[in-house]
Amino acid sequence: MSQQFEHVALIGLGLIASSISHAMRRAGMTSRITGYARTAATRGKARELGLCDKVYDSITDTVRGADLVILAVPVGAMGAVAKEIAPFLKKGAVITDVGSVKRAVIEAVGPELPKNVHFVPGHPLAGTEKSGPDAGFASLFDNRWCLLTPDKNTNRAAVQKLREFWEALGANVDEMEPDHHDLVLMVTSHAPHLIAYTMVGVADDLQRVTNTEVINYSAAGFRDFTRIAASDPTMWRDVFLNNKDATLEILGRFTEELFSLQRAIRIGDGDFLFDYFTRTRAVRRSIIEAGQDTDEANFGRGSDK
Amino acid sequence: MSQQFEHVALIGLGLIASSISHAMRRAGMTSRITGYARTAATRGKARELGLCDKVYDSITDTVRGADLVILAVPVGAMGAVAKEIAPFLKKGAVITDVGSVKRAVIEAVGPELPKNVHFVPGHPLAGTEKSGPDAGFASLFDNRWCLLTPDKNTNRAAVQKLREFWEALGANVDEMEPDHHDLVLMVTSHAPHLIAYTMVGVADDLQRVTNTEVINYSAAGFRDFTRIAASDPTMWRDVFLNNKDATLEILGRFTEELFSLQRAIRIGDGDFLFDYFTRTRAVRRSIIEAGQDTDEANFGRGSDK
Repeated sequence: MSQQFEHVALIGLGLIASSISHAMRRAGMTSRITGYARTAATRGKARELGLCDKVYDSITDTVRGADLVILAVPVGAMGAVAKEIAPFLKKGAVITDVGSVKRAVIEAVGPELPKNVHFVPGHPLAGTEKSGPDAGFASLFDNRWCLLTPDKNTNRAAVQKLREFWEALGANVDEMEPDHHDLVLMVTSHAPHLIAYTMVGVADDLQRVTNTEVINYSAAGFRDFTRIAASDPTMWRDVFLNNKDATLEILGRFTEELFSLQRAIRIGDGDFLFDYFTRTRAVRRSIIEAGQDTDEANFGRGSDK
Repeated sequence: MSQQFEHVALIGLGLIASSISHAMRRAGMTSRITGYARTAATRGKARELGLCDKVYDSITDTVRGADLVILAVPVGAMGAVAKEIAPFLKKGAVITDVGSVKRAVIEAVGPELPKNVHFVPGHPLAGTEKSGPDAGFASLFDNRWCLLTPDKNTNRAAVQKLREFWEALGANVDEMEPDHHDLVLMVTSHAPHLIAYTMVGVADDLQRVTNTEVINYSAAGFRDFTRIAASDPTMWRDVFLNNKDATLEILGRFTEELFSLQRAIRIGDGDFLFDYFTRTRAVRRSIIEAGQDTDEANFGRGSDK
């Protein structure tokens, strides 16, 4: 590791922030870690787990003197948090975030920050269906991508230092234009989540199929959807409200595609279905070859083998 | 195990049949196992793997003298296979299948069989995204459900013997009315598969997002869909064509629900989204409590921890 941040402040102490803390320590970083969370319960849990050198009850105390401030709160809270900490930021500090949408965060956070700090928006593409300070683990970012979305005015030294920070945590780092980020993530993350939520909601609503049946027979495919649909509700509410245009666009595209399959089923066009299902199988192969998922059957689930 | 079938014939030698063979041997069954597959390549592979005591090149030789014949071919092929083997079945034999839809299989197979055999339709709710004779493993059915759908005229002794067979293979067995089976499975299996296929198809089509991006950034949720959408295309084509009414009904319900979420996003109704996402989280909890999935984050994927 070249040059590390001496003092890292974590705002929000959930899955991502706690994993950052574990991964920093695994990497041998000696940075002072301070932390803050909105609720006393989360702060208490973080203290108990020893996630930070110091968990403060005050957000302003947490950021004071920090060289790197990581905003790890739901997207909808980013602007308010930025406004609150702005007067207390150290000159020259790097400010980043881990929000799943970038355009909305840039618009909410950017104007609140003083000119003498460097805002480098970021998004580590890593997570699980768990949330909270005890959900984190050191290897969460290993071989996962972290996308940074600086603009042409962003200080390059700050971008480079943040890149090295994420690489030390195990991630691959890339830069992307914020609107393109929001579109790509809509496809690879936001739309799958919304669709999984919808499918689980349909099952839960269906009166003629009992809940016991849905649960007992879930292993036939449905249980994969429930994992995604168990993700943090606040985080996902904010993602959809803050990436509205891309969401509505991709849902339109999805519905159109679903209708084409529905029509093929209605008219009995087996060739259309077979070709479609063969094409999608190839996508899986590419993901495994890119090292982004395991090739083990059923994800190598503990309960299945 | 009380009373075992002395000779079991496996028609079709893919994931399910090969897992049955492995599980029978694990259970210590001494039954003679004969097998047949449509292609010479599959038969050759099955011989190489030693899945059966004898793999025949003739389907009629395979079923001759068998006490239990298991039809493990795609749903669309069941009727033709039944017709072909009907004249060669042993009197009093039990005939079952492993098809994912039951009403269509009953209508296709039932009329072809002689009166002196016992047809007990079945469906083990187990599988992976892999297919072929080398995809099977002995524990596939462990703690999974196998649903039998006999009618009021079915010989109860035959049902009981088949139940014990599946239980010896590790499964939990239940009986269900065929139409209800098809509705329940539409919710827990068929619709999730169709929706996953659709989502992967949309991503694959989207011109402004490159395939490399979709693949590299898949870990954000999309990769779970690609696993489901990597399932056997022939099998799934047949499932949708043979469970058309339930498919079209549930897709209508799904689209309606998706539109309600889409509307909430459009008008910015965060409370609606939050409540919805909270409700779906509870379904996951129930599935884990019922022992139908692992509680490990990301399914305990090897590559993530």
